[in-house]
Amino acid sequence: MVIGVLGGGQLGQMLALAGIPLGIEFRFLDPSADSVAGRVGELIVGAYDDPVCLARLAHGAHAVTFEFENVPAGAIEWLARRVPTFPPQAALAAAQDRVAEKALFAELGIAIPRLAGVSTPDELRAGVERVGVPCVVKTRRMGYDGKGQAVVRDISEVEEVWTRLGGGGSGGGDGGGGLIVEEFVAFGREVSIIGVRGRDGACAFYPLTQNVHRGGILRQSIAPAPDSAGLQATAEAYCRAVMERLGYVGVLAIEFFEKGGVLWANEMAPRVHNSGHWTIEGSICSQFENHVRAVAGLPLGETQMAGGPGVGGGSVAGMVNLIGTPLDLIGVLGEAGSHLHWYGKEPRAGRKVGHVTRCAGSRAELCEWMGRWEGRLAEP
Amino acid sequence: MVIGVLGGGQLGQMLALAGIPLGIEFRFLDPSADSVAGRVGELIVGAYDDPVCLARLAHGAHAVTFEFENVPAGAIEWLARRVPTFPPQAALAAAQDRVAEKALFAELGIAIPRLAGVSTPDELRAGVERVGVPCVVKTRRMGYDGKGQAVVRDISEVEEVWTRLGGGGSGGGDGGGGLIVEEFVAFGREVSIIGVRGRDGACAFYPLTQNVHRGGILRQSIAPAPDSAGLQATAEAYCRAVMERLGYVGVLAIEFFEKGGVLWANEMAPRVHNSGHWTIEGSICSQFENHVRAVAGLPLGETQMAGGPGVGGGSVAGMVNLIGTPLDLIGVLGEAGSHLHWYGKEPRAGRKVGHVTRCAGSRAELCEWMGRWEGRLAEP
Repeated sequence: MVIGVLGGGQLGQMLALAGIPLGIEFRFLDPSADSVAGRVGELIVGAYDDPVCLARLAHGAHAVTFEFENVPAGAIEWLARRVPTFPPQAALAAAQDRVAEKALFAELGIAIPRLAGVSTPDELRAGVERVGVPCVVKTRRMGYDGKGQAVVRDISEVEEVWTRLGGGGSGGGDGGGGLIVEEFVAFGREVSIIGVRGRDGACAFYPLTQNVHRGGILRQSIAPAPDSAGLQATAEAYCRAVMERLGYVGVLAIEFFEKGGVLWANEMAPRVHNSGHWTIEGSICSQFENHVRAVAGLPLGETQMAGGPGVGGGSVAGMVNLIGTPLDLIGVLGEAGSHLHWYGKEPRAGRKVGHVTRCAGSRAELCEWMGRWEGRLAEP
Repeated sequence: MVIGVLGGGQLGQMLALAGIPLGIEFRFLDPSADSVAGRVGELIVGAYDDPVCLARLAHGAHAVTFEFENVPAGAIEWLARRVPTFPPQAALAAAQDRVAEKALFAELGIAIPRLAGVSTPDELRAGVERVGVPCVVKTRRMGYDGKGQAVVRDISEVEEVWTRLGGGGSGGGDGGGGLIVEEFVAFGREVSIIGVRGRDGACAFYPLTQNVHRGGILRQSIAPAPDSAGLQATAEAYCRAVMERLGYVGVLAIEFFEKGGVLWANEMAPRVHNSGHWTIEGSICSQFENHVRAVAGLPLGETQMAGGPGVGGGSVAGMVNLIGTPLDLIGVLGEAGSHLHWYGKEPRAGRKVGHVTRCAGSRAELCEWMGRWEGRLAEP
């Protein structure tokens, strides 16, 4: 069985590392000839919208999926007409436009911040006035890792922000750019739910994960999120509602702000997600294997902690991202209990080059380990 | 960092799947163009003793290792002169000749069955008389998975056995063939110890594993071996003694017969071993990652059960080999808690094509699971 993947980065590589033991072979399409996923499968180097490359990707493939959400909609439409392609186009369309995404959340009864979609400087000013300051202005499209965002604390900053974000034009792509003005949610913490839905409609959800971002980039995750017993069911219901509405197949991640016990949807990612990397060691079947199982039409694997009741396994897991960090194999592997996942990319400031995971029997033990990593990675 | 591997089978593939997340790239040399390890690294197709191929394997490699013990000694000597090559030649020499292997065990005070090395029909008859019947006659070299063995229950069978085993000539290779006559140990069970030694001399050992063979092929393993508390230290001491005597680097497996609380050494394998496949999910750092760490000169990883004290994780693990079984992805993945490792080889009678692992919180739970697998794989 062959699975084609649009994108050849670390997520694609981890999908293959999880799928190869199932006897599945992987084929990647990426414009970059040094895409790291090329180490674990065939790499087709070319544009995502080049029909010749897409045809090579789809040829004889059992299914096609993608590892990033900014895939040209046309490419997915082209593929979907020829080979089972998951997640579905509808999910990409929603995830690619922050306004459509929030509208979907609202429609499904999921709490969202006040917002306004704007396309001109005047609309931006009006939107900021309506939403109120402080507020967050983001490009509607193509934003990731905190890029294409600005916080507006005073109405006088509107022109400068419009210019800096290029009116969202940078977003380009299908449907043009534009900006979205969002209420600034003074949240207590960020959590994410990672769900998976099979071709047969079966759903499974991982324990809610607590995430820490800095500079818009995920720095660390802990699962299960502390004191999340009361939130798990709500997050699962939200995730299930989105997946069922979209006829979803594969792994879906939804990030929430938690404020006073209420989950506010921030954004979703129609793919395996950085906040689920801990599942490789921390859960019985990782998000990567489950995404592969789902798109391939196979039974889903168990999403409990490897330490779930009657299973044994770490009862808590933590993940720390390595961002622009040079590889120090001896230092990392000398850190007892750390599992290294190095992506094989050149370290550059702000670039995710790997992550480390630790499973532990207690939160105390895990926090101590994460503290050591925070210290090790502290930036001047 | 690049590691070269002689042999491109499933063991090589699992070494790469464990090493790629450490940022290490793999290169394999194998005479077969459809070697499965080619999916996870560069595959050089050629003879193990072809200097051109060996040069390509060694070029720029940080270290070279092998995934099977019947490597031509000349190839290892050639490589060792040019690149760090582990395990060392001395270990191969001992593992390739059952007489030398048993002599090493005896010399280190490790219990072994009575035996006799023989090279002619008359010597075989004399050897069988000296050792006594029933006894086991094996080729001195090139035996694996029960091939090249025969049980002699009556002295009258000697000629037939000599002919069937071709006087061990089939062994061919360096030093010619010959046979070994071994006392038949009416053992209670088979257990194996898997140890790893780093370039710095640091050693680590996995919990003793209980193995079941049928037709000379490993069928299933359970770790930790039941009631092995009193045997673990002895097995570790034996394994450490062998590794230190040989200046060993990498993973070493020693199989024992247990009879009345005594461990009788049966054979050793200077490589990752089938009875250690459970370590992928069952231990904190698998035998594959630890072999890679050792040969690469990196710190060793933790060998405790993933469920070791204060670590969390399954407290027991089981492994069942898939031998000549056609792939039934939906059936296997539908079996809750099973981890599949499919090697990507064509199923043939008696051929190891994959294995399944399960971690459990209790032996009862594990035995139930293994029982289901025994039933599923029962042969007519």
